[in-house]
Amino acid sequence: MNTVTNQLPKYTTPPAIILVDPQLGENIGMVARAMMNCGLMDLRLVRPRDGWPNDRAKTASAGAAEVVKTARVFASTAEAVADLQYLLATTARPRHSTQLVLTPHSGALEARQRAFRGSRCGVLFGKESRGLDNDDIARADALITVPLNPAFTSLNLAQAVLLFGYEWFGMSDNTPAKTLRMSSNTRPATKAELLSLFEHLEDELDTCGFLGVEAKRPTMVRNLRNMFQRAGLTEQEVRTLRGVVSGLARLGRSRGD
Amino acid sequence: MNTVTNQLPKYTTPPAIILVDPQLGENIGMVARAMMNCGLMDLRLVRPRDGWPNDRAKTASAGAAEVVKTARVFASTAEAVADLQYLLATTARPRHSTQLVLTPHSGALEARQRAFRGSRCGVLFGKESRGLDNDDIARADALITVPLNPAFTSLNLAQAVLLFGYEWFGMSDNTPAKTLRMSSNTRPATKAELLSLFEHLEDELDTCGFLGVEAKRPTMVRNLRNMFQRAGLTEQEVRTLRGVVSGLARLGRSRGD
Repeated sequence: MNTVTNQLPKYTTPPAIILVDPQLGENIGMVARAMMNCGLMDLRLVRPRDGWPNDRAKTASAGAAEVVKTARVFASTAEAVADLQYLLATTARPRHSTQLVLTPHSGALEARQRAFRGSRCGVLFGKESRGLDNDDIARADALITVPLNPAFTSLNLAQAVLLFGYEWFGMSDNTPAKTLRMSSNTRPATKAELLSLFEHLEDELDTCGFLGVEAKRPTMVRNLRNMFQRAGLTEQEVRTLRGVVSGLARLGRSRGD
Repeated sequence: MNTVTNQLPKYTTPPAIILVDPQLGENIGMVARAMMNCGLMDLRLVRPRDGWPNDRAKTASAGAAEVVKTARVFASTAEAVADLQYLLATTARPRHSTQLVLTPHSGALEARQRAFRGSRCGVLFGKESRGLDNDDIARADALITVPLNPAFTSLNLAQAVLLFGYEWFGMSDNTPAKTLRMSSNTRPATKAELLSLFEHLEDELDTCGFLGVEAKRPTMVRNLRNMFQRAGLTEQEVRTLRGVVSGLARLGRSRGD
């Protein structure tokens, strides 16, 4: 039994995505693409209107061939979910039944926690035009509704799948919220390297008279240092800036400024 | 100056979405739809390949007509971003420049914090086939890369816009993670109502002998109560279940069980 629910393991079996009465092959293909973007591989189709396999689905999947190839077709929702132990259903509209309603985030978390404890999970999505019918909604342990602009909540099928998948994938992803990306042959400048850049700049500015007003000098120096400090310079950039300072100073001296 | 950055106000000016060299009208329409889903209204197009206005964009926007109608066309990225004060750029591929890389979540948070302090913000998206070029990436204060399945990161244009917009919208949304939805003419049952259901059931079960083994009775009663407790019953459902108990008990008595 998992008691540390906020420390989920990296791998838990991804939930099945079940499309009930999907209409356009293109949409099934785009769903497959969105699934594969998020590491979801188990696609189940209940009564796809235009038959299966479907060439348009294959084209629209834009390379998510494995998901399309392994998709399974079922004659009823009951058969498609028979092996599952926890089922979510997506719906845009409020219903009258008494049911738990989750956000994509809390729904994905619930699915991950159940999967971690060994349950097979799935998410039902209804047809493009009308969503799920009441009987299919009643099969679900909980509903997912995406909080969106109340003036415009119509979401296409692949986008609904993407938002669930994005939340599900994000829970196993440890990308830092902010990374300073830099080329591999450099590194952040040290404080000592920054200080020699600042002193080099201030020497030349003293020479040319820019810092000539003694009373203002401390503030100006602080402001200049602050601007460069804020940029989070690399060692390579500090060397570039030292070159810029030298170059400008040389130009000034050759002009006799 | 905002010092309480985790308490953002509900309304801040939504960022502009800038599509550079978009190719298909359909994609522009789907972007408009994803934007409106998330309350983003300011769409800017740099050199749309198939001209503007575009009928296919209008059709694909599926009702997000206002975003399509008010979209503005620019001859260069520089002109499209001229009025902005903070610019994000989306990219799937790592580049060699030294730049801050954010997730959609931290990018949206950054945009919201800047907007709250009065800055006009925007997000650049490149063309479907190749993304943004290095010059346009260099215009941005920070990059956004969506963490996705490393084996399949190709995301379509509208889906990239949707994921940013979803994060941006979610920050002003206060939908609870879990809601028990129920019809307006009922409410969660009180403990007293549950207790009379339990006692009614246990009375009948004592009568029919189901709880006849005295040593097991306390455990069985606890397990039965626990099952119903877990279901989070409404007052109406408690009445329904009392009817079920009475109905079954009447049947049993009429059969002489």
